[in-house]
Amino acid sequence: MTDLLVNGLAQPGLPADDRGFLYGDLLFETIAFKDGRAPLWAWHWQRLSVSSERLGLVRPSEALVLEECLRLAGSRHCVIRFTLTRGSGGRAYTPPTDPVCRRIVQRRPWPDSIDRFRHEGMRLLTSPVHLASDSVLAGMKHGNRLEQVLAARECAQRGGDEALLQDTQGRLVEAIASNLVVVIDGLTLTPATDRAGVSGVGLAWLREQPGVALETAEITVMDLARAEEVLVINSVAGIRPVTAVDDHRFAIGATCRAWQRLWSERVGT
Amino acid sequence: MTDLLVNGLAQPGLPADDRGFLYGDLLFETIAFKDGRAPLWAWHWQRLSVSSERLGLVRPSEALVLEECLRLAGSRHCVIRFTLTRGSGGRAYTPPTDPVCRRIVQRRPWPDSIDRFRHEGMRLLTSPVHLASDSVLAGMKHGNRLEQVLAARECAQRGGDEALLQDTQGRLVEAIASNLVVVIDGLTLTPATDRAGVSGVGLAWLREQPGVALETAEITVMDLARAEEVLVINSVAGIRPVTAVDDHRFAIGATCRAWQRLWSERVGT
Repeated sequence: MTDLLVNGLAQPGLPADDRGFLYGDLLFETIAFKDGRAPLWAWHWQRLSVSSERLGLVRPSEALVLEECLRLAGSRHCVIRFTLTRGSGGRAYTPPTDPVCRRIVQRRPWPDSIDRFRHEGMRLLTSPVHLASDSVLAGMKHGNRLEQVLAARECAQRGGDEALLQDTQGRLVEAIASNLVVVIDGLTLTPATDRAGVSGVGLAWLREQPGVALETAEITVMDLARAEEVLVINSVAGIRPVTAVDDHRFAIGATCRAWQRLWSERVGT
Repeated sequence: MTDLLVNGLAQPGLPADDRGFLYGDLLFETIAFKDGRAPLWAWHWQRLSVSSERLGLVRPSEALVLEECLRLAGSRHCVIRFTLTRGSGGRAYTPPTDPVCRRIVQRRPWPDSIDRFRHEGMRLLTSPVHLASDSVLAGMKHGNRLEQVLAARECAQRGGDEALLQDTQGRLVEAIASNLVVVIDGLTLTPATDRAGVSGVGLAWLREQPGVALETAEITVMDLARAEEVLVINSVAGIRPVTAVDDHRFAIGATCRAWQRLWSERVGT
């Protein structure tokens, strides 16, 4: 059984001249599937659509991509990575005028750790790796993820579950693979991702839920000292409470548990 | 005949779980070969060594890499891309503790346009795509090159030969695929690449040549108005005069022609 489709065909590998490999010239979505459904599909497709417009990638039809993802997922509880690359060709960095974009679908098992983190929470570290701010790439889930790799490597070396990333101006942006929400004075705050970071699908879903009033705000590490709750969210792992940032501990609060119930009822992955 | 080696073996493609493809988790060198020699090999290897230390990639032996590159190059006048990826494995962004790095060698034909550009010069545009400054990745030739791809796409759409990139603070950094040298008041100036940009191999070679006194300086687009000469340099195309930046024209000067003679004598690719 294959766990890789390239343009809809089972393949042993990727063409070495694909611009995704050469330059990170790609977008991707990491999508939770369960029982033959991807509950957050619409939000993934929306982000991919907006980002492919920004990068000049030619978007395939939604039905085609969904069919290919479902073909690999079947009824499994699993994670599908859908990658859209600018394909092959062009002159070095200069892409072809009319790129023939390549669709790559990969399947991964459902991560064991998710249930435990949702229940017990995560211990975060503040990362010494800062995200370059005012990036022309901000907000997109593109293939240039070396900052995240370096942060994740450093975090693992120090034994953290996840790490908080600041931009080069000292503003909190997100965790390595999740968006950040902080409850301060009863307000639920999240940093902007239009200068650095990824516009998260889990967060986009959350914003649309009844009774949820997320405010975009500048947040610094210092602000965390007066936070009542801290949590992280992404489209696969859902909502996970943060029980510590460095040496500072947080209780798991009512907001987190309420949103987790919402997630269970409405997303269910 | 193959034009791709993966860990020394001829292969039809790449493993789809390679972190180079997934995250741009790689370094590369684009190396000019001629008559079975790479005259700038030592400078390429030096940059790769420093950068692999920074990223935590495990460096293969220099002799092994050179042998593999030469196997593909033969006696051709060609360009070899040597890529060192962090290989497969790890948990998403978190790399394996002891990565088994992958060596990928690819061959490209020698670009036709180089001779003409060296002789006639290039018309540059200032790019609206700014490089994020203060990047933790600055200086390295890594696989996260979407900023360059976007700049190259925009430049091609407007008909430029190359484009000048500024950082998000408005300082000139480099051209898309070359470093920048500006002659002002008889001084030869080049921007720093420790906050954004690539530490170029051609420039590193140039710095070591007798009689060459390059100074690192902050340069803005405005400063170009009083430049006597402008030129760009990279390890493959060598030294090319800039005859225009946007609507401002420059004569091809004595510094450029002298350095081109030096290049011909000592590099010869």
